[in-house]
Amino acid sequence: MSDVARTPWSNGSAITESDGAEGWERWLGLGRQAGDLLAAIVGAGPGEVALSDSTSVNLYKLGAAALRARPGRTVIVTDEENFPSDRYVLAGLAAQHGGTVRLVRTDPDTGVHADAVRRALDPDVALVSLSHVAYRSGAVADLAAITAAAHRAGALVLWDLCHSAGAVPVELSAAAADLAVGCTYKHLNAGPGGPAFLYVRRDLQAHLEQPIHGWFGQRDQFLMRPVYQPETDIRRFLAGTPGVLGMVAALEGARLTATAGVPAIAAKARALGTFALALADAWLSGYGVSVASPRRESRRGAQVALRHPRAWQLCQALRDAGVVPDFRAPDRLRLGLAPLYTRYLDVYEAMYRLRDILATGRHLGYPAQPTGIT
Amino acid sequence: MSDVARTPWSNGSAITESDGAEGWERWLGLGRQAGDLLAAIVGAGPGEVALSDSTSVNLYKLGAAALRARPGRTVIVTDEENFPSDRYVLAGLAAQHGGTVRLVRTDPDTGVHADAVRRALDPDVALVSLSHVAYRSGAVADLAAITAAAHRAGALVLWDLCHSAGAVPVELSAAAADLAVGCTYKHLNAGPGGPAFLYVRRDLQAHLEQPIHGWFGQRDQFLMRPVYQPETDIRRFLAGTPGVLGMVAALEGARLTATAGVPAIAAKARALGTFALALADAWLSGYGVSVASPRRESRRGAQVALRHPRAWQLCQALRDAGVVPDFRAPDRLRLGLAPLYTRYLDVYEAMYRLRDILATGRHLGYPAQPTGIT
Repeated sequence: MSDVARTPWSNGSAITESDGAEGWERWLGLGRQAGDLLAAIVGAGPGEVALSDSTSVNLYKLGAAALRARPGRTVIVTDEENFPSDRYVLAGLAAQHGGTVRLVRTDPDTGVHADAVRRALDPDVALVSLSHVAYRSGAVADLAAITAAAHRAGALVLWDLCHSAGAVPVELSAAAADLAVGCTYKHLNAGPGGPAFLYVRRDLQAHLEQPIHGWFGQRDQFLMRPVYQPETDIRRFLAGTPGVLGMVAALEGARLTATAGVPAIAAKARALGTFALALADAWLSGYGVSVASPRRESRRGAQVALRHPRAWQLCQALRDAGVVPDFRAPDRLRLGLAPLYTRYLDVYEAMYRLRDILATGRHLGYPAQPTGIT
Repeated sequence: MSDVARTPWSNGSAITESDGAEGWERWLGLGRQAGDLLAAIVGAGPGEVALSDSTSVNLYKLGAAALRARPGRTVIVTDEENFPSDRYVLAGLAAQHGGTVRLVRTDPDTGVHADAVRRALDPDVALVSLSHVAYRSGAVADLAAITAAAHRAGALVLWDLCHSAGAVPVELSAAAADLAVGCTYKHLNAGPGGPAFLYVRRDLQAHLEQPIHGWFGQRDQFLMRPVYQPETDIRRFLAGTPGVLGMVAALEGARLTATAGVPAIAAKARALGTFALALADAWLSGYGVSVASPRRESRRGAQVALRHPRAWQLCQALRDAGVVPDFRAPDRLRLGLAPLYTRYLDVYEAMYRLRDILATGRHLGYPAQPTGIT
């Protein structure tokens, strides 16, 4: 952006007594500044990550770019436990390109396995798109093995890092992953609806074409040229004007995460999860609660899921007890253990209160699970 | 969202001492709450407008929906003076659907005329997409006449309201306009990169299909059903998770605008512009400055453009004099006269300082316009 910094353009005029010339120029680079911090967090290089849009929109842009880069192939492989918005976007994309989505069967508790993905691969597959950490169980997929398998089959890979960035180690460059997206409002702590990010491996950047030809992807955007000529770097995958308030929060979240360091954060996530599962085994199994997350620490993100036939009612009772869980259909209660601010005492309190609810049967006084939620 | 309000879902777990059950539910409705305020500002009805994504992404979604709704027609009509990002997005969309963009010639000072649009219409045209207020000249297009002409030719219309919402009267419903997009960071004062909005006429909402199948368009999104079944209302045109910080700012901006009222705002915009042009005529014409905006108040938005061979250097000198203009290629200086906070004194000061620069020749000491900026 340095070539823009001394030009007399601006975005929205204003008359000020002080020189207002710097603020508007600074914000243009925020998305890439945060992107470079995020790159280190997800094992990528500088210039390979940028803040942009929402996760769904980024998935659409990069998924479309991948389909375009694999002409003649029209199948997208994903898995049953992938986040619904991902499945909707991918199914829509496949249909719009005359193709289909191929669903890999997954274990609800331990997630998608590399062997299952391998069996789904053939020369029709253009793209494999999976969540690195499953949103319900917290199971970690084998990013390196699945990426390698996809590459052997001639497909590109697009990882959703929403539940893994800032929670577990991610090694995009080491795995030579092609594409990734993620949000900043889970473990990156940028607040609800914080801007999403996207990753494109450097050697692919100049060759892929995403379909939303907005001016933030345009070379020298403020020259306002009449014809779209996209940048050859990560900006090529941007579209419209990003929101500054959200970017500033995401930048701070990325800074906090980078300062703490992923190894320390991931170690605490593992310890918090193991502590939660130990308490579940000791205190809750007698009440019909079972563990619905991987027990192996290396296969588990910064969250745990518990299974119980009345999970719906338990979630309501637990919220009234001051602990905010997620209900996950059909019978799971999910606890997010954001390592940066969740204390061991918080985990203890959550499980203690859950035991108290089960012991007293207080959850039975809450409305039963409506039909239609499966 | 009321059916969601008492369910035990949440978006991101947290353990709190206080009951955190309400905040996350409230923010889900922010985009539509702001949308209803914006609807009144652009002459639409409740439920016809929502905050979502960026203007470019919204243009892509609604443009794609329009092309899909007019099978067999592949031409998009727009104009030479339309904002570059709009032209890029529309050209990309047309190409992706096997079609082309047809450019209407426009007068750089007085904008796009309904007759010129009429001459561009034929049975190949699926969509007419124009800016209501031109970003350089501030010229106001005849929204009602152009919409009617497009409808007679069997095409849909998609208006960009970025430079008109909150600055001039907009009457979408009265004109039976089909689609519109706009930003909140110009005259709606939501801050840089504030979230964009989109409008879809109510009777079209259930019938159009936009291509980005994200979960904010999904019916009962928190049921997490495996297959995309979009809402039949304005939510159908949403995609991913919106940013709360930006939405809160946009909501405040919409509230301020609604409180002041568009008639009062538009009247002040006209008076500010006429004042600026009168000063330009009186003070600047002797220095080679000419007016590059419509003189008729009803044809001019809340901005004025001035033409001068050394506009590039004038913009730099004016910024150093504490007035932030926009340079607009090839030879224009644009002043935004946001009516809510621009005083008559500010206009006077801006023109006074510009005259002083011209009289002293101070702008000649600034770098000349680089080649390549046309």
